Amino acid sequence: MMNQMARIDTGQEAQMANAIRALAMDAVEAAKSGHPGAPMGMADVAAVLFNRFMKIDPADASWPDRDRFVMSAGHGSMLVYAINHMLGYDDMDMDQLRSFRQLGARTAGHPEYGHAKGIETTTGPLGQGIATAVGMALAERMMNARFGDDLVDHWTYVISGDGCLMEGISHEAIDFAGHQQLGRLILMWDDNGITIDGGTDLSTSTDQQARFAAAGWHVQAVDGHDREAVAAAIEAAREDDRPSLIACKTVIGYGAPNKQGSHDVHGAPLGADEIAAARAHLGWSHPPFEIPQDILDSWRSVSARGAEARSAWQKRLETSPDQGRFNAMLAAPDAAALRSAIRDHTAKLAADRPKVATRKASEMALEVVNATLPNTVGGSADLTGSNNTRSKGMASVTPGDRSGRYVHYGIREHGMAAIMNGIALHGGLVPYGGTFLAFSDYSRPAIRLGALMGVPVVHVMTHDSIGLGEDGPTHQPVEHVAALRAIPNLMVFRPADAAETAESWEIALTAPASPSVLCLSRQNLPAVRLEAGDDNLTRQGAYVLRETEGARDVTLIATGSEVEIALEAADLLAAQGVRAAVVSAPCFELFAARPQAEREAVLGRAPRIGVEALIRQGWDGLILRPGDGFIGMAGFGASAPAPALYRHFGITPERAADLANQLIQGGK
Amino acid sequence: MMNQMARIDTGQEAQMANAIRALAMDAVEAAKSGHPGAPMGMADVAAVLFNRFMKIDPADASWPDRDRFVMSAGHGSMLVYAINHMLGYDDMDMDQLRSFRQLGARTAGHPEYGHAKGIETTTGPLGQGIATAVGMALAERMMNARFGDDLVDHWTYVISGDGCLMEGISHEAIDFAGHQQLGRLILMWDDNGITIDGGTDLSTSTDQQARFAAAGWHVQAVDGHDREAVAAAIEAAREDDRPSLIACKTVIGYGAPNKQGSHDVHGAPLGADEIAAARAHLGWSHPPFEIPQDILDSWRSVSARGAEARSAWQKRLETSPDQGRFNAMLAAPDAAALRSAIRDHTAKLAADRPKVATRKASEMALEVVNATLPNTVGGSADLTGSNNTRSKGMASVTPGDRSGRYVHYGIREHGMAAIMNGIALHGGLVPYGGTFLAFSDYSRPAIRLGALMGVPVVHVMTHDSIGLGEDGPTHQPVEHVAALRAIPNLMVFRPADAAETAESWEIALTAPASPSVLCLSRQNLPAVRLEAGDDNLTRQGAYVLRETEGARDVTLIATGSEVEIALEAADLLAAQGVRAAVVSAPCFELFAARPQAEREAVLGRAPRIGVEALIRQGWDGLILRPGDGFIGMAGFGASAPAPALYRHFGITPERAADLANQLIQGGK
Repeated sequence: MMNQMARIDTGQEAQMANAIRALAMDAVEAAKSGHPGAPMGMADVAAVLFNRFMKIDPADASWPDRDRFVMSAGHGSMLVYAINHMLGYDDMDMDQLRSFRQLGARTAGHPEYGHAKGIETTTGPLGQGIATAVGMALAERMMNARFGDDLVDHWTYVISGDGCLMEGISHEAIDFAGHQQLGRLILMWDDNGITIDGGTDLSTSTDQQARFAAAGWHVQAVDGHDREAVAAAIEAAREDDRPSLIACKTVIGYGAPNKQGSHDVHGAPLGADEIAAARAHLGWSHPPFEIPQDILDSWRSVSARGAEARSAWQKRLETSPDQGRFNAMLAAPDAAALRSAIRDHTAKLAADRPKVATRKASEMALEVVNATLPNTVGGSADLTGSNNTRSKGMASVTPGDRSGRYVHYGIREHGMAAIMNGIALHGGLVPYGGTFLAFSDYSRPAIRLGALMGVPVVHVMTHDSIGLGEDGPTHQPVEHVAALRAIPNLMVFRPADAAETAESWEIALTAPASPSVLCLSRQNLPAVRLEAGDDNLTRQGAYVLRETEGARDVTLIATGSEVEIALEAADLLAAQGVRAAVVSAPCFELFAARPQAEREAVLGRAPRIGVEALIRQGWDGLILRPGDGFIGMAGFGASAPAPALYRHFGITPERAADLANQLIQGGK
Repeated sequence: MMNQMARIDTGQEAQMANAIRALAMDAVEAAKSGHPGAPMGMADVAAVLFNRFMKIDPADASWPDRDRFVMSAGHGSMLVYAINHMLGYDDMDMDQLRSFRQLGARTAGHPEYGHAKGIETTTGPLGQGIATAVGMALAERMMNARFGDDLVDHWTYVISGDGCLMEGISHEAIDFAGHQQLGRLILMWDDNGITIDGGTDLSTSTDQQARFAAAGWHVQAVDGHDREAVAAAIEAAREDDRPSLIACKTVIGYGAPNKQGSHDVHGAPLGADEIAAARAHLGWSHPPFEIPQDILDSWRSVSARGAEARSAWQKRLETSPDQGRFNAMLAAPDAAALRSAIRDHTAKLAADRPKVATRKASEMALEVVNATLPNTVGGSADLTGSNNTRSKGMASVTPGDRSGRYVHYGIREHGMAAIMNGIALHGGLVPYGGTFLAFSDYSRPAIRLGALMGVPVVHVMTHDSIGLGEDGPTHQPVEHVAALRAIPNLMVFRPADAAETAESWEIALTAPASPSVLCLSRQNLPAVRLEAGDDNLTRQGAYVLRETEGARDVTLIATGSEVEIALEAADLLAAQGVRAAVVSAPCFELFAARPQAEREAVLGRAPRIGVEALIRQGWDGLILRPGDGFIGMAGFGASAPAPALYRHFGITPERAADLANQLIQGGK
């Protein structure tokens, strides 16, 4: 075990902790903004965790079998930066700490995944760090079930504050982790009794230890400044098969003699006087941004220990019969194999022309996807039969058997999205999960964080319009697609038929650094792509599905279930001698990235009409001209069978044809 | 006490429950969609609750001192409709039940507030019903603290399913209710062990009773089909000062002999054969949609009891010295008084021209608002000092003293928004609450539900752009305003200075049926409205802040903190001999509602440039022409001081002026 070091020099470890405190004070002071309270309060816990337990190698920050550390209380980012500097990550020199919170520095206000090595996930939006860590811990056990202890044997440690535990997502994450018995997850709660408004007793009376115990966790409580007690608790946590809470009673801003223990140290610089007093109080005589070599050496010995472990692991990997399979799991999805499999599938679709809901088409695509890619992991927030997310033979991931590929996330949309981020960040597995599109609002904070991090997760969102019918306006998305299209670096697909659905899956699964949302219909839709072809047309974002003979009189642009309506409108218009082209636009983001000339060619010079059973917002890239029109929703939906709703809200071929004639007349 | 009826005829009460079951089966069958499982499973609990406890008068459905009933498991809407029909609500005749889930019927798939009397809140998005009920129970105690038991003395009852308890928001609500010791709240959990994917053991192992106890709740467990046990538990719950959980062990779809207890009865019609079998099993021989008179009479006696209670209450009100004050609290905010007070305030602002952040301006406005309106209730999700939501002298609402006007919602944005919905729905109090705009994503599901219901709640969202600076991209809204503007029936304000902020408050607080979001800056902004006037210009949505002498060469349209930039750009352009008008557009929704001619006059014929430090999406109503331009964000922000970020992302007067010159050239 990592902790069986011959002898712990607690005096030295105390200085390792004080080094975190000093750097946090100094960097916040230099930035004139930031949060010294949490790093100073949890410095002892962090020093013990890293000094005695963490298995990491800064020389290979992405080593698959490293322990994961998540600072869920992301405002305490200086704890991470201070530690990563002292561990010797080569991108975290002292200038980075001096530039804390400045433009271009790796040391952002909150830890940003991808900005610097050793940051396992972006944190800051409270509670999500815990749920993301749950995903990492689940992925670890799932990979362990596939490759055994020799290759996969690591821990996920989380530091969270009171805020994380008040947020609703913490409940979803804790409940899920307890159910799945994720014993490799250890949560250290910075129990300092302080929030921004004042004492936690202003707003909560929950017995957190009892709460975690109720969720099936192993629970301990320690003095967070008693390092031996902390070490013993981590040790005991590692011996237990359940996920563990260690409630660490701490003093926020520990070491600042006049301000510690109050919310004054939470989120503001201490000031020169208090920093001087803290230095005296802690016996820390070193100048700002200077760490004595012996303390640096102690931190570096953590890294040396990790390097040894990595080297041993590397040897095991190289002699393992599973080496090829392991590396394949860790690699990006095999784009060529997927392209080939999807092409075969769409060729078959072009022949069969099935009339199915795109949620069903998604299931058909997943049969191909999951047979082709070994590491996809499906799931749903308790809507498996509605989201059609489970392809044949996908076994459930259960506490007793993690070899399966299907996760029952429970009725926890936000937790699911964050857990999927964690699975993807862990590596080795490619998660997708389903819920109703209306409940993308519940998942939204984690979808956004995934987009910010550039984590390729696929959110399967079915029941994507009033077309879901009777469940009514609470369940009918009207603004959700617009709201999702608004999130940067998120690809939003709304495929029109089985072929576009399969193509959307291909793109989503091979996107290197973007999450995707697939918006899928509940109701059946006809095949609109009638020809097989080598190209993935969805990759163009929007393309001409039906061209006119001769110059266009009008172009109808539609997505998803409304492509059928646009085609029928074009038929009506043809009968009137009006030439209407139809463009299918399954992904606005991909289309926006195409060259201007190509976009203009697709959209044409004739009047354009957008058709989407959703609000108009977000269409301005396609119909941004005074003579253009839109047919869709202007407000909330209603409860009724889908055909009645389409008629009621005037989203019909007849109305599209009428509008086309009006616009054509108006343009003359 | 309501329950001291001389004698309970349990045989008759059993029939009252079976009547719910029969109507639920029949309506779902007629609609060919819906959820019979929950109404049938909870029919006994509901029959006991209404027959022995509920204090309601269908002849006056909005009687302020009625008990509130919330069906948090909204998919079980037929339980509500069946009961409300039998209680005799005059808008719920049998034709409504026959038209379940059909276009135009009051009997939507999920209970919709405002569609029919006796529906206290819209439910369906799981978990929110609990949080909304918490708001109602809080409002009841706050009103009780103001008016005493004679006028305010009622209960809030909730039925929730497993889904509600898995959702994160349930944690926020339960934690808050336990802390606030909301003893008037009784939650009856439909503990049927079934979710859509199968048994609850697929995804949860939480000991719910222990969980609620940890949050400070009174906890009981009963057989949900043992009506005497249910009655005794409700009785005991009412005797306890804490909020109460009654875990009701039930069989989902109870009474359907072949399908009960399985997820097959959750969300699909039973079918004719199973309905026939259930009728036989339950001894219910009556035809579909027919309730025998004696059973109707029993339900009507609940209403008669309520009518008596209301009559007695009415007499107490009429003889109360508090009558005037009580009625004033219940009435809509006094628009004339508020207009006058805000006008005085803005006149003073025009003289003082303070350079303050709009979050600070909001606090200044709140000093006026809270002195003028007696029933505003402020609060924050633990960001009081950052959101500036607490005006002078606002005492905290605590478990021991509910006479205050300020609520510490804790770090629970979603819960806060739903609790505010509940406070507003309860009546008598006008809630507003603050968090960071980036975390509107956390609140979003409840903001949407408030918009769908038309509940006037004010969401105070500060730190509304990259202008917040160092906290970085997790905390910097770029797409949030667009995403909020996408929600129907939501007013989104982004005021430019203290005057517009005050005007926004006035509009938000007097909106009869729309929630509002106030997007406020962290950074200081100069006064841009330099003249006092009688009119609330923000009510126009967008207005000409600076007109040109002679024809406009360009119109700069900006919101919030970017109005300053637009004005400076106009100055730069003026120095170049270019005539630039500046339009401030604090509320797109209000502007969209103005007559077309007025909008065209404001926006002008010259090229237009939108300036907003956010994404462009949503601006197409203002700059929808090929020759127009936009200056804003194209992706996520970064961590740095605000001025550095504005320069980095090119949101500057110089860039706006350059773009103006380009567009003017391009148009020539």
